[in-house]
Amino acid sequence: MAYTYAAPLADMRFVIERVLEAPRSWALCPSFAELDGDTAASVLEEAAKFASHVLQPINAAGDLEGCTLDAEGNVRTPAGYRAAYRAFVEGGWPALPCDPQWGGQGLPLVLDAAVREMLSACNHGWNMYPDLLHGAAQTLAAHGSEALKQRYLRRIASGECLAAMALTEPQAGSDLGALRTKAEPRADGSVCVTGQKIFISGADHDLTDDIVHLVLVRLPEAPSGSKGLSLALVPKWLPDGRRNAWVVDALEKKMGIKGSATCSVRYEGASGWLVGEPNRGLAAMFVMMNSARLHVGLQGLGHQEMATQNALRYAQEREQFSTPIATMPAMRHLLLRLQALTEGQRVIAYRAALAIDEAHHHADAAVRARAAAQAALLTPVVKAFCTHHGFHGAASAQQVYGGHGYVHATGAEQGVRDARIAMVYEGTNEIQAIDLVQRKVLGDGGRALATLLEDCEAEAARTEAVAGERGSHGDRASLAGFAGALRDQIAQARRTTAAIVAAAAADAQAPLRAADDYLFGVAHLLLAWAWAASARAAASEPPSTLAARKLQRLGYGVRCLLPQAAVHWQRARACSAEPLPSL
Amino acid sequence: MAYTYAAPLADMRFVIERVLEAPRSWALCPSFAELDGDTAASVLEEAAKFASHVLQPINAAGDLEGCTLDAEGNVRTPAGYRAAYRAFVEGGWPALPCDPQWGGQGLPLVLDAAVREMLSACNHGWNMYPDLLHGAAQTLAAHGSEALKQRYLRRIASGECLAAMALTEPQAGSDLGALRTKAEPRADGSVCVTGQKIFISGADHDLTDDIVHLVLVRLPEAPSGSKGLSLALVPKWLPDGRRNAWVVDALEKKMGIKGSATCSVRYEGASGWLVGEPNRGLAAMFVMMNSARLHVGLQGLGHQEMATQNALRYAQEREQFSTPIATMPAMRHLLLRLQALTEGQRVIAYRAALAIDEAHHHADAAVRARAAAQAALLTPVVKAFCTHHGFHGAASAQQVYGGHGYVHATGAEQGVRDARIAMVYEGTNEIQAIDLVQRKVLGDGGRALATLLEDCEAEAARTEAVAGERGSHGDRASLAGFAGALRDQIAQARRTTAAIVAAAAADAQAPLRAADDYLFGVAHLLLAWAWAASARAAASEPPSTLAARKLQRLGYGVRCLLPQAAVHWQRARACSAEPLPSL
Repeated sequence: MAYTYAAPLADMRFVIERVLEAPRSWALCPSFAELDGDTAASVLEEAAKFASHVLQPINAAGDLEGCTLDAEGNVRTPAGYRAAYRAFVEGGWPALPCDPQWGGQGLPLVLDAAVREMLSACNHGWNMYPDLLHGAAQTLAAHGSEALKQRYLRRIASGECLAAMALTEPQAGSDLGALRTKAEPRADGSVCVTGQKIFISGADHDLTDDIVHLVLVRLPEAPSGSKGLSLALVPKWLPDGRRNAWVVDALEKKMGIKGSATCSVRYEGASGWLVGEPNRGLAAMFVMMNSARLHVGLQGLGHQEMATQNALRYAQEREQFSTPIATMPAMRHLLLRLQALTEGQRVIAYRAALAIDEAHHHADAAVRARAAAQAALLTPVVKAFCTHHGFHGAASAQQVYGGHGYVHATGAEQGVRDARIAMVYEGTNEIQAIDLVQRKVLGDGGRALATLLEDCEAEAARTEAVAGERGSHGDRASLAGFAGALRDQIAQARRTTAAIVAAAAADAQAPLRAADDYLFGVAHLLLAWAWAASARAAASEPPSTLAARKLQRLGYGVRCLLPQAAVHWQRARACSAEPLPSL
Repeated sequence: MAYTYAAPLADMRFVIERVLEAPRSWALCPSFAELDGDTAASVLEEAAKFASHVLQPINAAGDLEGCTLDAEGNVRTPAGYRAAYRAFVEGGWPALPCDPQWGGQGLPLVLDAAVREMLSACNHGWNMYPDLLHGAAQTLAAHGSEALKQRYLRRIASGECLAAMALTEPQAGSDLGALRTKAEPRADGSVCVTGQKIFISGADHDLTDDIVHLVLVRLPEAPSGSKGLSLALVPKWLPDGRRNAWVVDALEKKMGIKGSATCSVRYEGASGWLVGEPNRGLAAMFVMMNSARLHVGLQGLGHQEMATQNALRYAQEREQFSTPIATMPAMRHLLLRLQALTEGQRVIAYRAALAIDEAHHHADAAVRARAAAQAALLTPVVKAFCTHHGFHGAASAQQVYGGHGYVHATGAEQGVRDARIAMVYEGTNEIQAIDLVQRKVLGDGGRALATLLEDCEAEAARTEAVAGERGSHGDRASLAGFAGALRDQIAQARRTTAAIVAAAAADAQAPLRAADDYLFGVAHLLLAWAWAASARAAASEPPSTLAARKLQRLGYGVRCLLPQAAVHWQRARACSAEPLPSL
C-alpha cells in the first residue's frame, strides 16, 4: 500500500477560521479586507488538488532517480519535475503571498502556510525549488535598488525566474562570520564575485531558464566577522545574454530530498549586484532566512501529516491476529500521539504565519508591533519543534508498517529521510534554541514572551468560560482540564524564564545550557494553548462524532503528552544553574 | 571527515571485569573455568582489529553498491564482502561461542556480545550474514535429528555454511499464526516445501557455497494458528549435489543495510527436513529468535558507539566561532547524553549475555534457573531499548555535523538508515514490550522481576558502602546520589508493576496499554543500576582523570536523563487504569 495524500482541508479550515479566527483579523487588515473564509477555502481546495494529483505522484520516482549533473555542467531534475513546475506557474501558485504591485496575489501568509504544508507533504524535494521564491521577492523588495527590482521582481513573483540562497562555505556553516567569498566593486556598479559555496539548494536546475543566487560576500576592506558581510544578487544569465561566470562543481549525494539539487558552486569572477547596503548583508539575508524558517517548520508539519494519515490508513486496513492493527493499544498510542501533535503544531505554525500577516498588514500600529514581536518569538519554536517532530513523527509512523516500512515502495522510509534535513538547514535546531532564549526572550527583556503569556491566559479564561456554558458534565470537566493544563504551562514558563534570567545575570553561559530544553518547554506551552483553543472551538460547534473524536485526541495530548513538558522545564532550570561536565 | 572506528576496548574490559565481574562468574562455570581476563581481552583486541581494519573500510562503499540479483537468479554481495568473510572464517570468528563438540571455541556469550557490538558498529549490512550462525547452530543442536546435526552442525559452526531465517509472509508479519507455507512429508523422511516468504536476510549470497534456511512451515492437517507451525531446514544444495527447488524472486530496495540481501523467496517443492517435533516449530524457532534478539540489541549498541565516538571527534576538530563546537553547551549536552546512554546500555546488554552464560553453564542449578529467568526478562528490554537509542542516538549524533551529516561521505546518515531496521526486525519493539509485561513479568508472577530488583537493591547497598569508605567528600556525595537514584527507580518499578497487576485483574487490555512505557521504565531502572554499578567500580579504582570523567558522565545521566523515567512510569500507571480513545 503506497503513500497517498488527502489534504486535511477540514482541519485546516477549522484551525484558520475557528481556532485562530483569521477572518476577524483579515477584516482589520486593509490588504485582506475583501477576503472571506469561502474564498480562502477554495484556494486551499485547488492547492490540495495540485499537491495530491501533480506533486505526490512524482515523489517516490524522483527520490529514486535524483538529480544529475550532465557533461556540460547543467543540472537535470527528475522526470516530471519540469511539467509539475509549469503547472505550478500556470496555476498562479508562485505569486500567492507576493505583493500585487509586482504581480503577486497578495494573499495572507496564513493561507500560504497551509499551501506550503501541502506541497511539502507531497513532495519535499520538488518543493525546495519554489520554496525560496517569496523570501527572495521580499528581500529584493525591501533592500534591492530600483533597477534590480525592475529587472527581477516581477519575474521572480511570476515564477519565471527561481532563486537560491548561497551562504555556506566549507569552513563556515552556522558561523557565517567566517565566510570568505569576495566581491570586488566594478566601475559600472556591479561586483565581481569569487569564491566557493556549498549546500546551495537549486543553484542550478532545468525548471526555469534564469536563476538568481543571493550570495553572502565580503567586500574589499570589509570588517572581519559577520559585520563585514554583504549580499549580492548573482544571476545565471547576464542582462546582455552571456552566461554568468559560475559553475556547479558537484551535486551532493544526500540522505533524502534527492529530487532537490544540492550544489557546490564555484564563482569565478561572476557578475552580481549588491542588495542593500555594503556590510549589511546579514540583515538583508535575514528577511529571506526568517521567511525560510517558517517554511521549514511547515515542511516538518507536512511530513507529520503525511506520515500520520498514511499510517492510520495502513493500520486500519492491515490485519494481524484477525484484527486491524489499529485496534492494538501500542498502535493506538502511536497514532493518537501523531494526531494530537500534528493538529497542535498546525495551530502553532499557522498562528506564527498569522502574526506575520498582522505585523505587516494590520491597520493598528500597536497591533503590528505586538504581532511582529510574537512572530519573531514563535519562528524559532515553529522551525525547531515542527521539524523535530517531522523527523521523529515520520520515523514513528514507519513503525506501524513493520518491515514494510523499511522498503522504499511504501513511502514511509522516504519520508523519514526527507524530513531529516529540516532539523539542520536554515539554522540548526540548536541555533533556533539559542535565538529563542538569547535574542527573542532575554534580548527584548521578556516583552514578547509577556504578550504571548497574556494571550495564553486569555485563552485559558475563554476555555473556562465555554466550559461553564456547556451542557454536559463530561464536556465541562474536559474543557476545564484543558484550561488547567494551559495554566500549569504558563506558570512553568514564568518560573523557568525567571530562573534563566537570574542565572544569566551571573553566568553568560547559563541560557545556552538551558536553551534546547527551554525551547521544548515553550513548545509544550504552545501545544497546551493550541489544544485548549482547539478544544474550546470544537466544543462550541454543534455536537458531532468528528468534534467528539477531536476532543478525545486533544485530551490524549493533554493527559499523555504534556507531562513531558515537566522534564524540559525542570532540566532547563537545573542546567542554567550549574556548569556541564567536560567531555 | 569520514567515519572511523576505534573499539572502546578499555570500556568493554571495564564493564566485563569491573562492573559485571564476569571472571568471578567464569570461575563458577566449569566450561569457562580456565578463562581469565587477559585471555578475554586478547580476543577482544583481535576482534577490534578485524572490525576496524577489514569491515569498517568496506561499509560505506557497500551501502552505495548494494546487492544485485544476476540474470541466473544468484545474489551478489558488494565488493569486498567475500574477502572479508574469508578473513572472518580464517580468524575462527564464526565459532566463537559455539559448542566445542561441533568445532566451536566455547567462549562465553558476554565476550561474543562485545565482538558483535564491534562487528555491527563497523558494518551492520555485512554482519547480517554471519549473525544468525550461532542461533542456527543452537537450534539445530537443541532440536535437530542426529542425522541433521551430523550433516550440518560442524559446517555451520565453522562458517562453511551460513544460515537464514524464513518466517515472514506477505500476509503474516508479527502474526506468525497466519503463515501458510506448506510442507508435505515424503516417504524418505524429508518434506516438500511450497510457499512464498519475504524479508529473508541472506537467503542467497555469494559468501558461502551452501546456505541453510530455517523455514516456518505448516504440515498437512496441522492445527491453525501458531500451534500448527513446524520448522524445516531447507538447504541450497541437496545432499546429492542438485540445486534445491527455491528461487529468489526479488531483492528489497531498503532504507539501509543495503549490503545485506533481503530476499523474497519462492519455495517450489523444495526439499527440507523437520527440525524438532511436528507443530512445535515455534518453540524451536524461538531458540534462534531469542539469541537473535540479544544480537539485535547489540546492533543498536554498536550504532550508538560508532555515532558517539565519531561525533565527539568531529566536534573536537570542527571549529565554528573560533572554537571547537564541542565546547558549545548544546553540543556538550548532546554528546554527554550519547556517552552516558551508550556506556549504560553496554552494561545492561552485556549483563543479559552474562545471564545467558550463567543459565547454561553455572555449576549451581539454582543460579542457572535464576539467571535463565533474568535473561528472559532482560532480552526484550535490551532489544527494544538499545535499538531505539541505536536509531535515535545515530540521528542525534548526525546533528553535530550540521549539513555535512546529511551527505553520504561523512558516514553519519548511513548509520541512521542502517540503525532503523533494528527497531523492527526479530519482533518489533512494540512486540518486545508486550513480551516483557505479559510473559516475562505477569506471566511468571513477577518472580524474575523480583530477583532483578533484589540485585538492584544489593547494588544500591554496595554503592552506598563504597560511598562510606571513600575519602573525598565529593565522591561520597556523588556515589550516594547514584544509590539514591537507583532506589527511586526500584520504588517506581514496584509501584508501577503493582498498579498494572491490579489493573490487569479487571481488564486484560490494561498491560497492553501500559507496555511501551513500562519497558522504558524498566530500561531506566536498569540504566540507574548500570550507572550506579559503573560509578561504584570507577570510584573503587585509583584516582585518575579517566575515572573522574567517567563519574562525571554517569552523573550527567543521573541528573539530566533519569528524570525522563518519571514520565514513563506515570504514563504506564495512568494508561493501565483507563481505556484509550478511539482513532
